[in-house]
Amino acid sequence: MQEVEKLLEQAEEMVKNRSFKELKTLLCDLQPQDIAALLSDMDREPAAALFRLLPKDQAAEVLVELDSDQQAALIGAFTDKELAPILDEMFLDDMADLVEEMPAGLVKKILKNTDPESRKTVNDLLKYPKDSAGTLMTPEFVDLKKNMTVRECFDRIRATGPDKETVYTCYVTDEHRRILGVVSVKDLLLASQDKPVSEIMETNVITVRTTDDKEEIAHDFDKYDFLALPVIDGEDRLVGIVTFDDAMDVLQEENTEDFEKMAAITPSEKGYFEVGVFTHAKNRILWLLVLMVSATLTGNILTRYETAFAAIPVLVAMIPMLMDTGGNCGSQASTMVIRGLALGDMKPRDFFRVWFKEIRIALVVGAALAVINFGRVLLFYSGQDQVKPYLLAAITSLTLFLVVLVAKSLGTALPMLAKRVGLDPAIMASPLITTVVDACSVLLFFSIACAVLGLTI
Amino acid sequence: MQEVEKLLEQAEEMVKNRSFKELKTLLCDLQPQDIAALLSDMDREPAAALFRLLPKDQAAEVLVELDSDQQAALIGAFTDKELAPILDEMFLDDMADLVEEMPAGLVKKILKNTDPESRKTVNDLLKYPKDSAGTLMTPEFVDLKKNMTVRECFDRIRATGPDKETVYTCYVTDEHRRILGVVSVKDLLLASQDKPVSEIMETNVITVRTTDDKEEIAHDFDKYDFLALPVIDGEDRLVGIVTFDDAMDVLQEENTEDFEKMAAITPSEKGYFEVGVFTHAKNRILWLLVLMVSATLTGNILTRYETAFAAIPVLVAMIPMLMDTGGNCGSQASTMVIRGLALGDMKPRDFFRVWFKEIRIALVVGAALAVINFGRVLLFYSGQDQVKPYLLAAITSLTLFLVVLVAKSLGTALPMLAKRVGLDPAIMASPLITTVVDACSVLLFFSIACAVLGLTI
Repeated sequence: MQEVEKLLEQAEEMVKNRSFKELKTLLCDLQPQDIAALLSDMDREPAAALFRLLPKDQAAEVLVELDSDQQAALIGAFTDKELAPILDEMFLDDMADLVEEMPAGLVKKILKNTDPESRKTVNDLLKYPKDSAGTLMTPEFVDLKKNMTVRECFDRIRATGPDKETVYTCYVTDEHRRILGVVSVKDLLLASQDKPVSEIMETNVITVRTTDDKEEIAHDFDKYDFLALPVIDGEDRLVGIVTFDDAMDVLQEENTEDFEKMAAITPSEKGYFEVGVFTHAKNRILWLLVLMVSATLTGNILTRYETAFAAIPVLVAMIPMLMDTGGNCGSQASTMVIRGLALGDMKPRDFFRVWFKEIRIALVVGAALAVINFGRVLLFYSGQDQVKPYLLAAITSLTLFLVVLVAKSLGTALPMLAKRVGLDPAIMASPLITTVVDACSVLLFFSIACAVLGLTI
Repeated sequence: MQEVEKLLEQAEEMVKNRSFKELKTLLCDLQPQDIAALLSDMDREPAAALFRLLPKDQAAEVLVELDSDQQAALIGAFTDKELAPILDEMFLDDMADLVEEMPAGLVKKILKNTDPESRKTVNDLLKYPKDSAGTLMTPEFVDLKKNMTVRECFDRIRATGPDKETVYTCYVTDEHRRILGVVSVKDLLLASQDKPVSEIMETNVITVRTTDDKEEIAHDFDKYDFLALPVIDGEDRLVGIVTFDDAMDVLQEENTEDFEKMAAITPSEKGYFEVGVFTHAKNRILWLLVLMVSATLTGNILTRYETAFAAIPVLVAMIPMLMDTGGNCGSQASTMVIRGLALGDMKPRDFFRVWFKEIRIALVVGAALAVINFGRVLLFYSGQDQVKPYLLAAITSLTLFLVVLVAKSLGTALPMLAKRVGLDPAIMASPLITTVVDACSVLLFFSIACAVLGLTI
């Protein structure tokens, strides 16, 4: 991997010195993703010059890896004669993604330079609902017929393979394009040449539908370690395949989305640097507002106990610790549940099993924290004369113990409940749970304090 | 996918009715992962009975997918005669993982039933440092020689392929086992049969070392969409390959670890249900303690302002909102940075670029929140007579604006700083940032309140 870094530095040097001939040789040794990274750091004009050095197939791969702004700049700079052969090398699912991202003028330019058949396929791909398998699949796969021998299968793979995203998983279909079986190139290689493919194909084929959610499909890849999955339409016809690399991207996108949701951010599909300040602000402000207004509740509870803490102000000093610890305990539980649900390790039907476990964890954690807090209060608050230190310690520790129980319960219940009613469990994370637990902590603390210390509100 | 659910239900039914003959046929149609899930829900005895129905190669795949407790139960129940052929079908990297998980008695049983050569390889694999490429790789790959023709390459693949985890990426090595090039089966299929492989192989091969961190390797897969990556030792000899499915698992594990760290949980490699209550408690308590004791600081700041809020108790009612909003703003920024660093979209050298962006976002978000908070305070706190409502609103809104700025700054800076000094940025997430921001919020609020309202402390 350090080699790559070195090659990239050399390439940057060559760009500076405009030694394009050397650069051309060097570029052949680089992966499309690395060339894309190189282009991202360059100005528009030298970037276009470098891009023109690439062989057409490599150019197509690099173009796919770029940000949409850079794609638009390059496509805008190309003549039709330059653009057409690059588009010709591009896989159709990638072209559909490209068309979706580009402004209308460039879409026209792209489609004009695409052959009619590909244009039709790209248009079909663009019609599938957002986030469905249809938008993720490529219609370019190897299909075989059941009466073919292994030798004929290889002939077909050789004839049609160059344009396919993968040749390693081939599908045997009937005249209505329905799947009869699946066969891997490994199985074909290990079988005798004259065997009919129908004898070696696997007939129990796991398929997905064009309308299936792409996240579910990504999880299937994660679970089953497939190289590719066949996609069928409403009439069970094989219309495309999804490959593992696209599934891996979906998995990572989904994880990023969960991280964002769990931090009270409305997820964005674009990269951090691609999005402007106002869009970032917009994505963050909605939840902040909801939570800010909700925090009014905790404020109101505090207002009810004004006379209590006006008489014994040191009580107020306990609030941050109780609120923070409650929030942290709640988000620990909710994170475990949200992640468990996302990975499929937990199901909503496991609710009571998880809840019972969390309650037991809460008993252990709560007891340990209560004991240590007792010492902490004695240590830091023995100097004040508003309330006996051991009483203050006892009130705080009892509250803490109960808060941990409440927080773990809510942290388990809310994401599970969200899943059950069809919401994304990830929204029931730290920020929301913290707000709810805050109100509980304050209420518990002052109820206990007033009862123990005989305060009236 | 619904088909799978149906098959699993049928299988459960057959287990109940002990109709093992039908079950045997049905099992052939299921993926190893699904059979493993089926076994997990069964008692020990029928599980072992079902497992014995499986053909040896499928049995090996299923065994790999089970929890370590279940693996131990099954291996313990097997006779040597039953165990040996299953182990014989197992990939050596999987066997190494299995040996690592099993108690000493069973390890002995496993190694006794393994042929001497495999035993040696497994022992070698177990010597690699934790979380290194060495622990992730399989030593079973197809190696070719440079003077082979395409036809001879296929002969070699056919001869050695059945035992290999993947045959689709083959490596051309010299007599010292150093890599000369890489060739895919697709390229071999599309080339003419008499061409020497040296003419079609790619000579610029991206390799990783046995000692490389497995997370970095997972990111290489995510970036480059490779099927497999070759692993070389300290003397540049090819010793194994890592395949995409293992990389995908590492990626998911790493994401889970980040989720856990960001929720103040010490990550565990085992599943939620596999870990006992006390271990869960232990994994959660460390950070809770650290943060609880840190919250003493915020408590102490509050104690300094006792006279202020004893005189105007309504000030206390503003604290939860300020603390929560500050914490949320900080964790939004830190999540963006932690995720950006994890995916490689941000580098520590981007610090000022990110920080400047976050400051601008904070200005927009802070201003919007301040305006709305002004209205909120007027709406909810006009009834009290301790302080003029518009003054209370102004003090809170000004504090809020400043808190948002501080929170976004800290949320950006702390993870970046952690990365720079070699710590995991994920620990600088919501819980820690909340604790730091809390202290700032309270200090800012009372400083401003005392100044504006002319209170002395």
